Amino acid sequence: MIKVGIVGTTGYAGEELVRLLLMHKEVQIQWYGSQSYIDKKYYEVYGNMFGLTEDICRADDLAEMAKQVDVIFTATPQGFLASVLTEEILSRVKIIDLSADFRIKDISVYESWYQISHKAPQFVEEAVYGLCELNREAVKTARLVANPGCYPTCSFLAVYPLAKAGMIHMSTLIIDAKSGVSGAGRGAKTANLYCEVNENIKAYGVASHRHTPEIEEQLAIVSGEKTVLNFTPHLVPMNRGILITAYASLKRKPDGSLPGQEEILEIYRTCYEKEYFVRVLEEGVCPETRWVEGSNFVDVAVKTDSRTGRVIMMGAMDNLVKGAAGQAVQNMNLMFGLPETEGLRLVPLFP
Amino acid sequence: MIKVGIVGTTGYAGEELVRLLLMHKEVQIQWYGSQSYIDKKYYEVYGNMFGLTEDICRADDLAEMAKQVDVIFTATPQGFLASVLTEEILSRVKIIDLSADFRIKDISVYESWYQISHKAPQFVEEAVYGLCELNREAVKTARLVANPGCYPTCSFLAVYPLAKAGMIHMSTLIIDAKSGVSGAGRGAKTANLYCEVNENIKAYGVASHRHTPEIEEQLAIVSGEKTVLNFTPHLVPMNRGILITAYASLKRKPDGSLPGQEEILEIYRTCYEKEYFVRVLEEGVCPETRWVEGSNFVDVAVKTDSRTGRVIMMGAMDNLVKGAAGQAVQNMNLMFGLPETEGLRLVPLFP
Amino acid sequence: MIKVGIVGTTGYAGEELVRLLLMHKEVQIQWYGSQSYIDKKYYEVYGNMFGLTEDICRADDLAEMAKQVDVIFTATPQGFLASVLTEEILSRVKIIDLSADFRIKDISVYESWYQISHKAPQFVEEAVYGLCELNREAVKTARLVANPGCYPTCSFLAVYPLAKAGMIHMSTLIIDAKSGVSGAGRGAKTANLYCEVNENIKAYGVASHRHTPEIEEQLAIVSGEKTVLNFTPHLVPMNRGILITAYASLKRKPDGSLPGQEEILEIYRTCYEKEYFVRVLEEGVCPETRWVEGSNFVDVAVKTDSRTGRVIMMGAMDNLVKGAAGQAVQNMNLMFGLPETEGLRLVPLFP
Amino acid sequence: MIKVGIVGTTGYAGEELVRLLLMHKEVQIQWYGSQSYIDKKYYEVYGNMFGLTEDICRADDLAEMAKQVDVIFTATPQGFLASVLTEEILSRVKIIDLSADFRIKDISVYESWYQISHKAPQFVEEAVYGLCELNREAVKTARLVANPGCYPTCSFLAVYPLAKAGMIHMSTLIIDAKSGVSGAGRGAKTANLYCEVNENIKAYGVASHRHTPEIEEQLAIVSGEKTVLNFTPHLVPMNRGILITAYASLKRKPDGSLPGQEEILEIYRTCYEKEYFVRVLEEGVCPETRWVEGSNFVDVAVKTDSRTGRVIMMGAMDNLVKGAAGQAVQNMNLMFGLPETEGLRLVPLFP
Repeated sequence: MIKVGIVGTTGYAGEELVRLLLMHKEVQIQWYGSQSYIDKKYYEVYGNMFGLTEDICRADDLAEMAKQVDVIFTATPQGFLASVLTEEILSRVKIIDLSADFRIKDISVYESWYQISHKAPQFVEEAVYGLCELNREAVKTARLVANPGCYPTCSFLAVYPLAKAGMIHMSTLIIDAKSGVSGAGRGAKTANLYCEVNENIKAYGVASHRHTPEIEEQLAIVSGEKTVLNFTPHLVPMNRGILITAYASLKRKPDGSLPGQEEILEIYRTCYEKEYFVRVLEEGVCPETRWVEGSNFVDVAVKTDSRTGRVIMMGAMDNLVKGAAGQAVQNMNLMFGLPETEGLRLVPLFP
Repeated sequence: MIKVGIVGTTGYAGEELVRLLLMHKEVQIQWYGSQSYIDKKYYEVYGNMFGLTEDICRADDLAEMAKQVDVIFTATPQGFLASVLTEEILSRVKIIDLSADFRIKDISVYESWYQISHKAPQFVEEAVYGLCELNREAVKTARLVANPGCYPTCSFLAVYPLAKAGMIHMSTLIIDAKSGVSGAGRGAKTANLYCEVNENIKAYGVASHRHTPEIEEQLAIVSGEKTVLNFTPHLVPMNRGILITAYASLKRKPDGSLPGQEEILEIYRTCYEKEYFVRVLEEGVCPETRWVEGSNFVDVAVKTDSRTGRVIMMGAMDNLVKGAAGQAVQNMNLMFGLPETEGLRLVPLFP
Repeated sequence: MIKVGIVGTTGYAGEELVRLLLMHKEVQIQWYGSQSYIDKKYYEVYGNMFGLTEDICRADDLAEMAKQVDVIFTATPQGFLASVLTEEILSRVKIIDLSADFRIKDISVYESWYQISHKAPQFVEEAVYGLCELNREAVKTARLVANPGCYPTCSFLAVYPLAKAGMIHMSTLIIDAKSGVSGAGRGAKTANLYCEVNENIKAYGVASHRHTPEIEEQLAIVSGEKTVLNFTPHLVPMNRGILITAYASLKRKPDGSLPGQEEILEIYRTCYEKEYFVRVLEEGVCPETRWVEGSNFVDVAVKTDSRTGRVIMMGAMDNLVKGAAGQAVQNMNLMFGLPETEGLRLVPLFP
Repeated sequence: MIKVGIVGTTGYAGEELVRLLLMHKEVQIQWYGSQSYIDKKYYEVYGNMFGLTEDICRADDLAEMAKQVDVIFTATPQGFLASVLTEEILSRVKIIDLSADFRIKDISVYESWYQISHKAPQFVEEAVYGLCELNREAVKTARLVANPGCYPTCSFLAVYPLAKAGMIHMSTLIIDAKSGVSGAGRGAKTANLYCEVNENIKAYGVASHRHTPEIEEQLAIVSGEKTVLNFTPHLVPMNRGILITAYASLKRKPDGSLPGQEEILEIYRTCYEKEYFVRVLEEGVCPETRWVEGSNFVDVAVKTDSRTGRVIMMGAMDNLVKGAAGQAVQNMNLMFGLPETEGLRLVPLFP
């Protein structure tokens, strides 16, 4: 049994980790960390857990936790892990960080977008960007995995095949994203009250959202091109789900023609043919968040438009699963030599 | 492996059965029955199933199905099973019927409330009312199980401990019920369109809902008293969930006093202490549908009111799981000698 | 033009007052009071008001406000008005209080349910309970109107005709209520976050909600009977709307028979035949909150059940309009000699 | 009093027309046309209208209607008006058509996108595209007004100032749109059931939506450039509202620099300074559909991104008001010499 500690169990991503790990047969949760609910029973914070665990929330003490568990998940605000991480801790346990602290290799980019000074730059190089479909082998041997952001995971997987294949002009890439409200966390803010979010849609963080450089860095790596893009997230009145609609101009072939729909779709199929969690939808089908809810799947589709010479790349995902806790478990499975899908063969819940 | 056939796979209850059975390790679905989508791939009807099954919808042919499978689930409109069931079929397979055809022992009551003439009254006596917590032993040896209705399951389990203990005046019982929209099925009706249901709550079937006699019959059996009650369902803008708020006058003790909160709560605890799927909530906690979503749990709570001499009995449940497909699988487990919780140890999905 | 001041403009009821008063042709809002947003432009707090008012939020200074306006609306937490009200203020302006401070005549009942000591008991006797359909004449000459609570308004109007006519046993009355989330206010609480409320229904304040004694007091007055009842509110995932489902046993006639549906319905029709804002629905139609949204209507319906000898009384209303701001404007119209419906002939918004 | 006939009163746009016209003091509705509910009372179809009208639905007989009314609104499927319109009818009444029949001047474009042969091409030239902010003067004298589509209205008004000013490369324009469900109409389709739409977001009509050529034609006119763009609509789980997020590359100035945020914002302010219904939001504020619900406002905002050289243009609107019935009433006001805002000074309803 793998002994697990979770820092930040009482946020939504932390709670989703608990849900997944309680159903994972190789795992035992040893430490339910929480800043706000210390000494409370976990099921008093999340009533769905009543009868499933009697455990009590304990302080987020990383050093002590490191002595008692095999792996730590940190589902915490930016800056937390970087401020407490030490070589001693890393020598004892593996860490899967759900925050942004170790996702971006260029520290100045991180510091500029997050407006925070990085407290542990010495571990940035070592950290593996835990997008399993991209970095599977590196994850297996990592001590420190930077679990990707929700928007970056879905954006990247929707665009990846064409970026890698060099089929699109990276400078024309625009990503219009839509997310359910759980992505905003469980903090008690007026803006996230039911009546403020319900019956509404809005854009936010326009031209300034912090997931932008993370997406750019990863796409630059796989495309081999400098990538500067527009990323616009929107808040949608639903609990879970992210939908990505991405636009880019297709590169013309030597003969001046545009690649066709079948050719483009085939690139997606080939790229993901061995991936269990990425489902390339059939011709004419668009991703919908309802079809992935509660599961670790990412559904992707692609549509060429000969009128404009663009391609529309789409992806749908559950932001709390593949966008956070599910991908973290997928990384854990890789790091501990388990089958990658262990505990994650969940059928999406509908309706 | 138990071979399973499902009649009516393309309704919401049928689809939930597929979800649960795909994650059940002792089961293989052999026949995806459907009236409306014959020859379509199942994942074309329910996109969440893409990549999980390649099966095709086949006609709802009960006799042929009976030759190929070990157990048949019928998730069909009232009257269907009664109109096709024969001794020959029953001698080949076990049947778990999610419709109302065999739930009510008094055929005249059935015919009067459902406005339908019963086509197979000869099997009514044999059919076991599949409320596992009540009829566990009888289910184990049954050929034909009448899976309870969604409202009756939650209503019954909320009231059962006090009805059985003879603590309430059964003639004062009022059940005010609230349900999510999936209970209304997938039929294309104007009344169930998004814009008609969203931002709205209404009562329906007031003093005439067909689940009334089912609840009355079961409560009469366990209380030993004639039970005629008011049952009022309401439609709530959410996908899943049933909440029951039931009211009854407490019987006074010989000394004229009313039983206290602790005494009443203890009756619930004792009644359900061995039940995995019924969670008696802690003092002061009320059931909420969000805490059971996607799981087979029923959460119950009770509150006495010394001002009025009444007790308020509450229950929350996922109408598609414990209220339909989950309870059907629970019955199947019992009928095939599997652990009752096999495939049903699902952690509720929140948010 | 009537000059208006509002204390508590930045809560939901306050904002609804602004909406209604901006469309009221006899009124000018002079003072947008707010504790939390002093010196902010009102449209920065509520973006719907952009372009409609340039006014700035000012402190909730009742004494100063009294010098500048003709009428003050207090949309504030319990206890506020009682703690600042003086004879001098009341001699200058009329006050319509949307809090509970002056609704309950029995001060010990108020203090016991609200757990607060009443700071201005000398005005309780004078205050008129502003349920216009009940106390129209008294409102016209009042200095201080206690605007009814949302649940009490809808509960009272649903039950009133039969209570007044002496047709029901008041001791058997049970009121099961359902409300949208705006009733919970705009305070930043975890429990009211989108993800906590969405896809959920729950009861709260079971056997202890503070609107109970208000309903009891008013029904006791009109029925002439002591009234102790069960009132159970539920939180429904929608912005606006209250639905009441009330149950009581019908009194039998001298000949032992129960009154019939037509007879009961006729009592409702007669009772409300002159009321513009109370709509008695046609036989067989149940109230739905969607049909009154944004308007000052209350829809009521009634259904007798000969099986149980009970009657089910139903009402639907917009909690922010007839349940708060709309009724307050209706009271203002009466107090200033305007047509009662002035500014309130709003067609419900659907969908 | 202007006598009004409505063809298609029982769809959502038709019902919204009724709501607005019942509150319009210069209008009387003479004819509630409906195909599906002939001889039913209108309030039986839309319960919000109970007590407000006793009228009965009558057949959609345009010729007869033309004899009895001054203006006809056609809220009908594509092709209906073109198939019945005659010179005789047009000589008797003014017509405001909410369908697409007369919006597109290039008939071959209409026929190609709508897959329908145009039955009344002789009136296309005469018809005025009723985007009031654009064609105010022409509308005043028109006999036949083509009321713009919901997406085109919001898309156009969001992009118009920069298109007209020649500040953007029209060939780079991408419009990502999001709409509430009422835009899909009241037809009983499985895809629009509550459980299918709730908790979901999806794109549809990708690279093929029929509002595309309408947007292109109007933007080409005002920009003077051929305009071929990508338009992608998405379905959002809410009743009302359209949000537009549009992207385009800014043209560089002669000195090679990009125009700045203030300069761009000033263009919007100047363009719309006299428009009551278009609200240019303050710097840093993004449009949200909740702030316009129930009103005829369109909120627009703009954000330049110096990193990518693009501008993000945003707009929010109520699809049933400014996107359909409200704009139709605005057109009617213009055609009959009434103040343009008559009956439309509605304060948005929130929450």
